[in-house]
Amino acid sequence: MVNLQNVERWGRFELALSGPTGGNPYVDQSLQGEFRCGEHVVKAPGFYDGDGIYRVRFMPDREGEWSYTISGSVPELSATGYFNCLPPTGGNRGPVGVSCAAQFAYADGTPYYPFGTTCYAWIHVDEALQTQTLETLAQSPFNKVRMCVFPKHYAFNSADPDHFPFAARQGGGFDLERFDPRFFAKLERRVADLEALGIEADLILFHPYDKGRWGFDALGAETDARYLRYVIARLAAFRNVWWALANEYDFVKGKSIQDWERLLEITAASDPYGRLRSIHNGTKMYDHASVKLFDHNHPAITHMSAQHWDVTLPPIWHTAYGKPIVVDECCYEGNLPQRWGNITGQEMTRRFWDVVARGGYCTHGETFVHEHDVIWWAKGGVLHGESPARIAFLRRILEEAPESARRIPEVNDVPTLGVEGVYYLQYFGIHRPAYRVLELPEGVYFKAEVIDTWAMTIRPVEGLLHGSVRVDLPGREYIALRLTRVRA
Amino acid sequence: MVNLQNVERWGRFELALSGPTGGNPYVDQSLQGEFRCGEHVVKAPGFYDGDGIYRVRFMPDREGEWSYTISGSVPELSATGYFNCLPPTGGNRGPVGVSCAAQFAYADGTPYYPFGTTCYAWIHVDEALQTQTLETLAQSPFNKVRMCVFPKHYAFNSADPDHFPFAARQGGGFDLERFDPRFFAKLERRVADLEALGIEADLILFHPYDKGRWGFDALGAETDARYLRYVIARLAAFRNVWWALANEYDFVKGKSIQDWERLLEITAASDPYGRLRSIHNGTKMYDHASVKLFDHNHPAITHMSAQHWDVTLPPIWHTAYGKPIVVDECCYEGNLPQRWGNITGQEMTRRFWDVVARGGYCTHGETFVHEHDVIWWAKGGVLHGESPARIAFLRRILEEAPESARRIPEVNDVPTLGVEGVYYLQYFGIHRPAYRVLELPEGVYFKAEVIDTWAMTIRPVEGLLHGSVRVDLPGREYIALRLTRVRA
Repeated sequence: MVNLQNVERWGRFELALSGPTGGNPYVDQSLQGEFRCGEHVVKAPGFYDGDGIYRVRFMPDREGEWSYTISGSVPELSATGYFNCLPPTGGNRGPVGVSCAAQFAYADGTPYYPFGTTCYAWIHVDEALQTQTLETLAQSPFNKVRMCVFPKHYAFNSADPDHFPFAARQGGGFDLERFDPRFFAKLERRVADLEALGIEADLILFHPYDKGRWGFDALGAETDARYLRYVIARLAAFRNVWWALANEYDFVKGKSIQDWERLLEITAASDPYGRLRSIHNGTKMYDHASVKLFDHNHPAITHMSAQHWDVTLPPIWHTAYGKPIVVDECCYEGNLPQRWGNITGQEMTRRFWDVVARGGYCTHGETFVHEHDVIWWAKGGVLHGESPARIAFLRRILEEAPESARRIPEVNDVPTLGVEGVYYLQYFGIHRPAYRVLELPEGVYFKAEVIDTWAMTIRPVEGLLHGSVRVDLPGREYIALRLTRVRA
Repeated sequence: MVNLQNVERWGRFELALSGPTGGNPYVDQSLQGEFRCGEHVVKAPGFYDGDGIYRVRFMPDREGEWSYTISGSVPELSATGYFNCLPPTGGNRGPVGVSCAAQFAYADGTPYYPFGTTCYAWIHVDEALQTQTLETLAQSPFNKVRMCVFPKHYAFNSADPDHFPFAARQGGGFDLERFDPRFFAKLERRVADLEALGIEADLILFHPYDKGRWGFDALGAETDARYLRYVIARLAAFRNVWWALANEYDFVKGKSIQDWERLLEITAASDPYGRLRSIHNGTKMYDHASVKLFDHNHPAITHMSAQHWDVTLPPIWHTAYGKPIVVDECCYEGNLPQRWGNITGQEMTRRFWDVVARGGYCTHGETFVHEHDVIWWAKGGVLHGESPARIAFLRRILEEAPESARRIPEVNDVPTLGVEGVYYLQYFGIHRPAYRVLELPEGVYFKAEVIDTWAMTIRPVEGLLHGSVRVDLPGREYIALRLTRVRA
């Protein structure tokens, strides 16, 4: 069987083979593809998709002619062939990775600034709501979604989804040795929908929101590993997939740090593309003396996905780990009784700015009381809050900054992002100075703009600045100052 | 020479003796008094007050007849006599100390809740401004003032005071072996003025705001000790004096933790009354991993005087030290360029509530840009900010609470002060829940009040509450909930 396809770079090549249906193909059979482009070889795992269909999915990372050889546990699961890899089209800039400078960048070199949001269980609700979520995301500033593979059993989340990752067992419960391809088809469709919107899917592989209801937080080591490999075989070829090994890992009873390290290593070893890998903490945010986080120096961790409400910490973590820092939970805009879910839009916006001005990235979530418990943070739907518009404004400001802008630690009284002598973005947050004295280099001229990050206004300061100069500020909260060098 | 006086309990008895003027009486002569009331004996140091006058000051701590014997380095500095100690009058409740429950209380047992403010250098400015400061304090909610003995050389503070603790040396500089009684007379007058207003004088004995201008931050060990003993001999008898060994001790170059411990031990040993003793830190607030504070377990430390902007920490310190916690600097309401001096009134008020609801105490300061640099935090004058009225409101709420109200650590999602089954005060701070579900004991009824800590309103919730009950809240920031048991 020979397949002739054109595939764009960082797109997906997929091959389907018919194979055995007897026994338990999920466990009994295996297949993998070897893909070659010149001297460059990539091995990609295949998977059983039910109904006697086996698939191998592959993301080619360079243009040109690729050959492949599929081989499996039985002779039917073999194939060879060729395809052409063409230049990327549309918004396809390749997968996001970590750049040399410990920042994120697309594979084509374009910087990627994560402005994520959280919709943990959005694929586990009815179709109409999923469609609405996608429409909302399309209009939003968000370019990353934190979302769970497993369904969620938690406050405001009580319904069963239509399908589960594991096959139902007659008489109840799950057959943990068989997957449900219908579930994965849905998941893949939604990941592809996000891909089409240019949104990264930060896929949460394990989480603690189960507590005996389905048992997905306590599957046992062997099932955990089989599940991981199956998810990776199916989804790693989607260029917008990130592996979030767990959400609030420390809330999962019965898994130790060593277990997480093992699962992380399986994830890294099973994924041909080296997708981004993180693990997200739960508690221990307040007792500073006893903060015990997963050691993010682990070589298989690509970036830190932190939960913390103290948004001044990213520089410390950045120094400790030398990896990008994403504060993936810093509380949510809303009015739930739970303290993690009831901050104002001002506070959410402030936390974004306070993190970004320190060289990290921040993730949004929204949790307003709703008569049918349709809360964005879990189920998606529509956004009600005041922060998304301001997050869009911040994203615009950051995208206007020089690519090489970084936190400038020498400015130690105000978080400042910039390029020395060229560009500075200072954020005053809850502080409201009436003025600021700047010490700029002599002989170089800067234009200054006073940014009201809440009102979303940018007011130019009259004249050009140089040397030691005092800039009057509005004396309100949430002000930033942008200095851009101009030709004198 | 016999002195017959009536002195009220916790008032001041003072005896003046004429003595030698030759040589350097500050160094060459010494005197002390032994005061006896039945079997109870207190030894109090005397001091030279210039012009051939020597004094011994003493605060009797019990009613009845006291006898005394003064003895000194020369025969003239001797005396015996008696006085009567009468019941206290007016607002005199005795000195503040630490109660068995690691809280503050006046000597008569009345709880003391410190609501301090900061006027570092208010005695070092002109008389008219000092008078204005006292008038402002009289109208304010503040019952403690943080103030420096030494003058201050710092931003917005550049003038020399009229007098210094040390005598001027001919040709410039100071004679570090002689004090200036005029300075101490002024200091004592101001401490007495505060005493008359019922305000504690949290006297800062050393500070780093000198940096070579006068040299008071680098006097050498012997002069430091002589200075301490002189200040204590003169001021310990004022019942409203607290010893703040240093402000921002870690900013004082050239003194080690061991030096501070030695000076603290001298302070404790020289003071007959065991006045409250603290030491106040400067920086190391942000790098949580490297917080190195003076060990407040030191037995001569009576309470923690912290500088920190994270107002969630008092319970951790309380557990670590078992002593009262006062966050004596948490930023100031104002609009200075310095980040410690430009938070809003809302933020200042929030910090007070967030500290108090966690069983600690908080201190105010105000730093608005002023055309003549008359800034409350250093020079006193008048208050411009929005927080003092709200601090008065909080003080009223706290004084209405049962005396035995303490932080209830079992309520771990909202800081809660109370007495189990009797009274609860919960503060939501920046969190704005739309409602709260309370789990109250069955068969006991509570009245509930929704307190807007910014608007200073108290709205009763209709009906009486018991068992598991949902209380609707305004969904705004800065809300507290007060539950008070009523007879069913």
